Parts: sequence; C-alpha cells; structure tokens
Amino acid sequence: MKIFDTICSIATAHGHGALILIRVSGYEAFNVTSQLFKNAKKFLTLPANFVKQFDIYENEILIDKIMVAKFAAPKSYTGEDVVEMTCHGSKYIQKKIIELLLQNGARLAKAGEFSMRAFLNGKLDLPQAEAVADLIESQSEVAHKLAINQLRGNFSARIKTLRSQFVELAALLELELDFSEENVEFADRSQLNNLLHTLKDEVTQLTESFKLGNVLKTGIPVAIIGKPNVGKSTLLNCLLNDERAIVSHIPGTTRDTVEDNFTINGTNFRFIDTAGIRLTDDEIETFGIERTFKAIDKADIILYMIDISNTSLEDVEKELIFLENEIDFIHKKLIIVANKIDQLNELPKHFSDWEEYDIAFISAKRNVNIEEIRDLLSQHVDHHNIAETTLLTNVRHYDVMLKIEEEINKIESGFTQNLSTDLIVIHINSILSLLGEITGEVTTDEILDTIFSRFCIGK
Amino acid sequence: MKIFDTICSIATAHGHGALILIRVSGYEAFNVTSQLFKNAKKFLTLPANFVKQFDIYENEILIDKIMVAKFAAPKSYTGEDVVEMTCHGSKYIQKKIIELLLQNGARLAKAGEFSMRAFLNGKLDLPQAEAVADLIESQSEVAHKLAINQLRGNFSARIKTLRSQFVELAALLELELDFSEENVEFADRSQLNNLLHTLKDEVTQLTESFKLGNVLKTGIPVAIIGKPNVGKSTLLNCLLNDERAIVSHIPGTTRDTVEDNFTINGTNFRFIDTAGIRLTDDEIETFGIERTFKAIDKADIILYMIDISNTSLEDVEKELIFLENEIDFIHKKLIIVANKIDQLNELPKHFSDWEEYDIAFISAKRNVNIEEIRDLLSQHVDHHNIAETTLLTNVRHYDVMLKIEEEINKIESGFTQNLSTDLIVIHINSILSLLGEITGEVTTDEILDTIFSRFCIGK
Repeated sequence: MKIFDTICSIATAHGHGALILIRVSGYEAFNVTSQLFKNAKKFLTLPANFVKQFDIYENEILIDKIMVAKFAAPKSYTGEDVVEMTCHGSKYIQKKIIELLLQNGARLAKAGEFSMRAFLNGKLDLPQAEAVADLIESQSEVAHKLAINQLRGNFSARIKTLRSQFVELAALLELELDFSEENVEFADRSQLNNLLHTLKDEVTQLTESFKLGNVLKTGIPVAIIGKPNVGKSTLLNCLLNDERAIVSHIPGTTRDTVEDNFTINGTNFRFIDTAGIRLTDDEIETFGIERTFKAIDKADIILYMIDISNTSLEDVEKELIFLENEIDFIHKKLIIVANKIDQLNELPKHFSDWEEYDIAFISAKRNVNIEEIRDLLSQHVDHHNIAETTLLTNVRHYDVMLKIEEEINKIESGFTQNLSTDLIVIHINSILSLLGEITGEVTTDEILDTIFSRFCIGK
Repeated sequence: MKIFDTICSIATAHGHGALILIRVSGYEAFNVTSQLFKNAKKFLTLPANFVKQFDIYENEILIDKIMVAKFAAPKSYTGEDVVEMTCHGSKYIQKKIIELLLQNGARLAKAGEFSMRAFLNGKLDLPQAEAVADLIESQSEVAHKLAINQLRGNFSARIKTLRSQFVELAALLELELDFSEENVEFADRSQLNNLLHTLKDEVTQLTESFKLGNVLKTGIPVAIIGKPNVGKSTLLNCLLNDERAIVSHIPGTTRDTVEDNFTINGTNFRFIDTAGIRLTDDEIETFGIERTFKAIDKADIILYMIDISNTSLEDVEKELIFLENEIDFIHKKLIIVANKIDQLNELPKHFSDWEEYDIAFISAKRNVNIEEIRDLLSQHVDHHNIAETTLLTNVRHYDVMLKIEEEINKIESGFTQNLSTDLIVIHINSILSLLGEITGEVTTDEILDTIFSRFCIGK
C-alpha cells in the first residue's frame, strides 16, 4: 500500500439539507481527525466499521455533535484509513469542521482524488473508477445499467480477454521468429491472419458500439422540426412535463433535472437546440433555415411536425424530398408527427394510408396520442441488446480503441506485404500498451489527472 | 416507547454530489430495509452501530453498492430503530432506493418528522428539537452559538427554573388559601409580591432579549442610505465581496450564500432593500423618498453615506436634522460614511473633528478604510454579553412569553385589588401551562405540526 497525505472533503451535494457527509482519507486520517474531539483516545480506540457519536469542540466551544465511522486500511473505499463524519447541514458547521481538519494537517481533496487513490491502491481498475463517475452522473435506467456493468468489471474483463488474445497473437509470431533463421515460410500465417481478423472484428464492434453507448449515457439526441406554428413547443412541453409529473412524486428528485431531457422506458432522450424552438416557433423561424439543419445534423431522431389540418400530402412529400436531398438520413430515424387532429373530423385517408414513414397522429394542445410518439421513440433503442453486449461509453476508451484499430490495420498490411515478423511485433506491443492504458496498467500522472479531474469533489 | 410507522427520506441536500444519505426510521425500519438486500438475514443480524457494505438489487439487477448503518431503539436520533444508507449520488439511484423502500412498506417522511419523533420519544424536549432546525439554518458563528446553547438544553433549563419558581409562588398562595377560612390576613403578601416581581423581571428580561436574539439569528438589519452617486452600491459590493473572498477558499461553501448577507466577527448582518440600492443608485432615487424611510424603519444600523469631496458640513447637518425629525433613532445606530476621500488631498477639518456621530472616512472605489466600517458595525454587538445570557431567539417562545407577561400583570393587579387567592391561582396555572407549551410538556398535534413543518425534509 502506498503512503499518501491526508485529504478531506464534503462528499454530499452543496445546498440546503439536514445532514452533510465529510470524508477524510490518508495515512494520518485517524490522527488528524482525533484532534477535533475532546476525547481523542476514545476515537482512536473505536473499532473499525463502527459508528459512534462524537462532539467537536473548538476552544472549549461545542461546534457540533456528529456521527463518526472509521474504516481501516485496506478495507475502505480508497484502501487507506478513512473517516466519515455525518454532521448537521449548516454552512457554518461544515466550514468550521473543514477548517479544523485543515488546521490539523489534512488538505482539501481535489476532484476525484478519493477514487484516484482507490485506483492507485488497487481497489478499482481504471474503467471501474471511471464507472463511479458515470454512476453518479447517470440520470436514466439505461445510463445507470451501463455504469453499473462497468463498475462490476464487465468491460475490464472484456479488455482483459482482448489483451490475452493479442498476447497469443504475439506468441504465435514469436514462434515464427524463433524459426525464421531457418528460413522456413510458415504455413500458418493464415492462422495468424484468421486470429487477427477475429480480433479486428471485436475491436470494430466495440468502436462502433460507442455511438450508441455514448448517446445512451448522455441522452439520445432528438430534434423537433417543422414550419412555424405547427406546435413544436407545445409538443416539447408535453413530452417534458409528462416526464416531470412522473418523477415529481418523490420530493427533491426533480429539482435540478437537466432542462431538456426526458426518459422513456429507462432511456434518456435529449432535445437539440430547444431554446431555438421556444424562441422562434411563432413567426421568425421558417422551415429550412440553417439552425434546423444544424439540429438535424446533431440528432439521431427527427420529429418532423406538420399541421395536418392545414397541409396537403403533396406539400409534405415535397418538403421530405427537399430534406432528404440536403441531409444524410442513413443513421437517423425520421418520425412524422401529424399535429392538430383535434381540428379535423376524420383523418385524411392519404395520410393514414401512408406507409413510407413512421407517423403519429396527435393533438399536442389536447395531449392526445402523445403516448404514440413515446412508443416510436422508445422503439429506437433495443433494450434487450443493451443488456447483452458490452458497449463502449467512454470517450477516452473510444479514442484508445481507434488507435488500436489503426495498429491492427498496420499489422494487416504488414501481413499482406510480407513484412518481417519483428516489425509486426512492434505494433502488437503498441496494442498491448494501449489496452493497458484503458485498464490503467500503463498510465501517466497526466492521464490520471485528466481522468479524475472530471469527477466531482468528494468522490 | 411509542410505536410509529416506518418513514424514509433523503437527508442530504439535493443536487450534484458524490454521496447521498437516506434515512429510515420506525418500528419496522429493519424489516423494511432488509427487503432491499439479497441477503436480508445478513442485514438483520448486523449488530447495531456497525457499518457494512450491502448490494441493493431489484429483479436481479444491481442498483447500487451502499454503506449501511443500523441504530437500534432507543439509542438513535429518533429513539426508534433507524437505518442510514450512504449511496452514490445519482438521481436515478436515489429515486430507485426510495421507490424500493416505499414498495416495501415505508412512507415518505414529512418535513421535520424525524425530529418530531425524537421529541415524542423523549430524546429531545421541544426547544431542543427547535434548536436542531436553527442549527441547520445558522449561517454565522453567533447564530450557531445560540442554536447550540439551546440544543444543549440551556434555554430549557432556564424555563424549568422559572417553572419551579412559579410552582413555589402557587404553593405560597395555596398555603394562604388553606388558612383563608380562618380569615387571617397574611403578612407575607409582600413576600409573594417580591417573588412575583423577581419573576416578572426575569420574564421581561427574556422578552426584551428577543429583539437581539432574533436579529442575531436572522442577521442584523443594515440600511445604506444617501443621495444618488455617493457610492452606495460600491460600498455594498465591498462589504459583500470581502466576505465572499474570505469564505470562498473552501469549495462549495459559498455556492448559495444568501444574497445580501455578510458576517463580521461571527455576527451576521443583512442589508435591507439592497435591490433598491442597486437599481436606483445612479439617477432615479433622490434622498428622502419613501423607500429610504422604509429601509431605515426596518434597520437596526443605518449607514448614512455622503460624498465628502462634494458636500459641506452644513448640508449634512441639515439632512441629519431632517432625518432625525422624521425617524425614531432611539433604538438605531447611525454611522456616517464619508466616501470618496481619494478625491481629496486632506480630510476637511470640520468633518474630522466632528464628535457627534460615528464617522468613517473611506474610499469605496479604492477599497480604502472599509475595515473601519466593519469595526463600527461589529461594535454594535456585545459578544461577551451573548455568551453569558440566555437570549430568546424563537418567535414561538416569544409569543408564549408575551402571554405569560400578561398573566403576571393580571396577578399583580390582583394583588393590588386584594383579589381572592383562588382567582389569582387561576393565572398561575395559566402560566405553568404556558411554560409547558414552550418545553413541550403541554402541547397539541396542531402545535407540533406547525413547529416541525418548518424543518427541512430528512431532519
């Protein structure tokens, strides 16, 4: 176990609450904390994993009665001696306790420093530590599931398998190398080639899963487009408010929901450029302006809204042809939202018979058939699939995987050009090192600082 | 011990944080919570005051790995069986855990319900429970000290002494009553009178301490007044920013500081009508408008600002006479702030010799001598005095004390009018009942609901 100085931090959210949790970790965590209590010895002899009430005093003045738990190295989150203090949720008390800890030799923890220590002390590998940050950020069931899987080591296990396969590839090549002086052309370069292709497929599968993995984590981007006054902002409010109504029965859980996010069946969706819609729905925006194209470009799903009480099928088809000429729809899903059905006696037959597109007939104003849109959005995600496969969700892992892909390509062309084995082995070694970068076996202080600085303070 | 149903709540602040604390309390707290874990038995057999990691599952899906502590009745905050769970700070996880607790028979706690149970189970008396809420709200050292003193029972002890003295008074009267049939006029009505006066003095002292106690808790109200362009908003920013600079070295402690509050030497000050100052400093506001009078009326301290580079002593004196005619300054402190000394070569002698008022010569723009204002403000509060005496800080206690004062007056005039003893005893009984209302010995559900509904959720 490495010896680190003692850090402290508030670990709960800032703001108004009944209780606050303060965490201390490090080689001197017990000694530093004991200075806050009148009876330091009572604290020092408290058994690990035990909670007890202690009084914090400063110059004979009682600051707070708090609950204290001790966790002894290595059986703690960081792997070091850790103290967790639950104090009353007053600004004054939290400031005072932190000040007292600083006076007694602790320093303020940097963002993610507790998790960084957990990694450095071998309690978590790097993807697991990164999963802790993802877990805290996760707003939807799916995002939560992805983070939990990674925290449990599923992703790390996959990387380890990949690594051992590359080690095997290297071994086969070394074997070739051993016999190379005898100038024997090996029949099993084809065996090598097969193994390489399997590995390439696997890496490609991972890099390709990133697009889905990433949007599942941050929310699937959705754009609502359409002419002015078709009801875009009314629909937006329907979808957002509905979500809010569901969540709000638990006090506090809605307080700072991200503005333009909503969840359907555990999947998070995110509206693109919603401010624009809200601002310009009435008059200013006309169909086809640059903003619309930008929103479409960033979106995975496009809700194309029409006022069915006031549009002909021909007009819509003309606009769709225009759209499809301008934008690459290959990886996007287009849903036609035919609004204002409340202004019709019956649905126009040419629209209801239309089979070319997914279409939902709704009245945003009267909140009719909004469920249909939710269903269509939800179908975009194959839930079953997510549970079964490992998805790449982390930009850092994705970047490293892209580099691995490059190295594989170099090996491939090396084989084709009958490059000497020792030149090919260099690329395999690069790959092993890159895989080690993902799991944290190969790393630098700089990489670690970058990773953990994105964590929140206190974790 | 009373048997209550099981309640649960998030006890830490809402928002973005590494960890969240969830609290469960009630007769079935252990059984309800055990349903969340795969190994319910392991949880049920966990000794009290012990912390251990448990995994929360829903339908075989891992929700979170959390730390759990058990507290067994009556050795807990509420006096009931209590479970405290520290989980990862994600909205999804907190929502999920609360949902699981509700599904398994807990219900959401109302604001202050944990503390209400602590009171009902005899863990705290009513002023102590009220002090918990004050403690959480306390922003300054002094407010904190007042709450801590009350939490430790100092105020309750004083009320109990008062109560026993009134019981003594009643006993003396009863004695008189016993002999009354013999028609003996007691010589010691004077003794009774003396005791009553002592008690009256004590009650008056308490009610009079409320004004100070209350402003120390909520912040001493300060008004900055003066003509347009004398630099009111610059001074305001100096005082507020200075405070912010001091606090801000601990991350997060400033985030939601109350807008117009600042602390000097542990005492909280609060600017009156600051928005007005900010809005109207430049042109609109002229000295003497209604808003200024209102601000002065609400303030304990008035910072009367002048532009010393551009004002004669005569003008200032004229304005002061005008002010003193309009406003009752008896209980207010007036401080003259002579601003813009940076525009002078030397201080005008007639101002610097002025001894009638507290005066500070400053340059708000250059941040010169602001410390002098801070000193003058600070002198307004006698710190020593606060530590020594019990101050009435709670409106509810104050209201009851006023009623007690009325009853004492009735007893007094009863003595003067030689009213029969049994009529006087009625008033003493009222007083005993009123004192019981403060400590919580005499109470109704309605009173308790009113008191505890002002607490935050989770406490």
